[in-house]
Amino acid sequence: MERNCVGLVTPRKFTFGNEKDPLVLESGRSLPSVTIVYETYGEPNEDKSNAILICHALSGDHHAAGYHDPHHSHMGWWDAMIGPKKAFDTEKYWVICSNIIGGCKGSTGPGSINPAKAKPYGLDFPLVTIGDMVKCQRHLIDHLGIEKLYSIAGGSMGGFQVMEWALRYPARVGSAICIASCAGLSTQAIAFNTVGRSAITRDPQWRQGNYNHKGPETGLAIARMVGHITYLSQILLDSKFGRKLQSADRLRYNFSTEFAIESYLNHKGSAFTERFDANSYLFITRAMDYFDIKRSYGSLKKAFAKVTSRFLFVSYSTDWLFPTGQSLEMVRALLSNGKNVSFIEIDSPYGHDAFLVEGEKLTRILTGFLKGAGRAKS
Amino acid sequence: MERNCVGLVTPRKFTFGNEKDPLVLESGRSLPSVTIVYETYGEPNEDKSNAILICHALSGDHHAAGYHDPHHSHMGWWDAMIGPKKAFDTEKYWVICSNIIGGCKGSTGPGSINPAKAKPYGLDFPLVTIGDMVKCQRHLIDHLGIEKLYSIAGGSMGGFQVMEWALRYPARVGSAICIASCAGLSTQAIAFNTVGRSAITRDPQWRQGNYNHKGPETGLAIARMVGHITYLSQILLDSKFGRKLQSADRLRYNFSTEFAIESYLNHKGSAFTERFDANSYLFITRAMDYFDIKRSYGSLKKAFAKVTSRFLFVSYSTDWLFPTGQSLEMVRALLSNGKNVSFIEIDSPYGHDAFLVEGEKLTRILTGFLKGAGRAKS
Repeated sequence: MERNCVGLVTPRKFTFGNEKDPLVLESGRSLPSVTIVYETYGEPNEDKSNAILICHALSGDHHAAGYHDPHHSHMGWWDAMIGPKKAFDTEKYWVICSNIIGGCKGSTGPGSINPAKAKPYGLDFPLVTIGDMVKCQRHLIDHLGIEKLYSIAGGSMGGFQVMEWALRYPARVGSAICIASCAGLSTQAIAFNTVGRSAITRDPQWRQGNYNHKGPETGLAIARMVGHITYLSQILLDSKFGRKLQSADRLRYNFSTEFAIESYLNHKGSAFTERFDANSYLFITRAMDYFDIKRSYGSLKKAFAKVTSRFLFVSYSTDWLFPTGQSLEMVRALLSNGKNVSFIEIDSPYGHDAFLVEGEKLTRILTGFLKGAGRAKS
Repeated sequence: MERNCVGLVTPRKFTFGNEKDPLVLESGRSLPSVTIVYETYGEPNEDKSNAILICHALSGDHHAAGYHDPHHSHMGWWDAMIGPKKAFDTEKYWVICSNIIGGCKGSTGPGSINPAKAKPYGLDFPLVTIGDMVKCQRHLIDHLGIEKLYSIAGGSMGGFQVMEWALRYPARVGSAICIASCAGLSTQAIAFNTVGRSAITRDPQWRQGNYNHKGPETGLAIARMVGHITYLSQILLDSKFGRKLQSADRLRYNFSTEFAIESYLNHKGSAFTERFDANSYLFITRAMDYFDIKRSYGSLKKAFAKVTSRFLFVSYSTDWLFPTGQSLEMVRALLSNGKNVSFIEIDSPYGHDAFLVEGEKLTRILTGFLKGAGRAKS
């Protein structure tokens, strides 16, 4: 068992909305009722002013820390960061993580039952945006009786939610931690998402989104394989796999799995189909493509004119999917508005995945920032 | 009609080998008879000492210059470089380009009839290597009565063939021009090839390679989409497409083609299935993965100990699939062997595709090098 682990945790559900008071989405469409699955770690203080919201990325979920069964078989995705004496210190903070709307881990999404048709929504599910995800989180935060979040943090698409919170609800965000993220995907990132979605929607098993048990596993696996390449740096791939052969010391001159990198990608692709839903992959990557602070507000400078949170941006030196320049663009726009913003580029070979695997370096930075955020407030 | 075009050209065929004297491949397997399709531009001089062999890349073919019909509907892939007064000046040089073995444009490949079974080879076709491709080219060069090539040139996988020629047949290569290439694919490049091949072989239409008319079009299109992203730089994608919407000025909140980059990739993927064979894509990308000068010779230094050609390496500043460092690695190994080698990195926003589209910059460099190659020889 890991030291300083929050231990056994149980996900909870929160449902809001009804036919008369539905959740109205950015697209104009609405959902009569929405369920959000979430977990909490640590305890609220008296006035609930110690709450930190953690926002997950594309393939993450609400299970950010601890484990769900005594065998610890399924540790939270950011367990290195959340727990007693960790960066998000559960002896001080009340840490909350919820599964996004559109996801496939218990929150309302395309796999949920469409009450109008008594079968899963599939493609009838309305397109959701990062703003819609954040709106749902705000309902949850209201429900939990939290007036103002001490902090909010997330990496990659989690960073999109962090920025959306700071922009939509400035009075409710004490400080914002945006890691390995950006104000809008690059063309290249949209291009890779396009390939992933094409692989899914052209898989005959997809059936226009109306698959039952066996979904478009091939398409989803291909999408994940492409994704994985973009999450890792060239340096890491070279040093971890290089041109190593998988199971022989000589070439076999056939199409079996020859190189170690082939085996790795095949494994990652297949494993993903066991734990993720293809339609959710479509909806979430589309939400990522749509996220665009410049389009929504006219410019970054205009967007950040009214934010009040203290900001921390973290990028990673070898992250080519969300390169440092994209964080710096937001930092500059905040500075030009005279806002309180910190920035650091962490030197790491891990590429975009660094925010998930380089716990120690990130811990040093977040610990300092969160302490400072407390001082600034008092 | 383009100025200085070689005009109407007709592909020719050359067949060699028989049951008693087959082509023995690097794998140990053999092909009883091999046909190579090729084109020539310009005329041989008296002693045929002015021949330049052009080697094509993954999706290229023997049709490098001119056109096949009076409507000029299908110009050669390197027409900007080959013709009267162009870099490969057909008033001076006799330029030859042949389709590789394993290809799908007329040379023997997986789509050819397997004489043992009287049906297309499919996966029964033996795996071919870059060395095997070059061996076939050598048969062609013998057949054409060329003792020594004045020069040999190619980009990307064409550069692999250039290096293989210089290593296998040093006495027959006057000078070697290796563009946007490397001594062995990076892990990341193998990874992208793995995704492409997986998309093809997991497409139900692939049928273990035994498809008839309608092949694995989805898989091949996905493979090409992934490829296209890697051929272009982030800078070019940002400036050419950015986050531009395809046909509306507002988001449509659905899964139709929304961004211009989506439309571009979908088009490129579909168009490729009209002109390329899925099995050939498998065989050629595998040959690319296998190419590894270090593995074959122990080290680059050892490999280049006995080469005698004059070398020119060209790389492109934004090519992240075959980055400049990979060319420099070969340059250094040649220099440490005291060989005659030139190198230039061309500043270009076009990424790997630059070798196909940045004709003017490349022309200036090649013209000088080819003149110098002549002087050095006399």
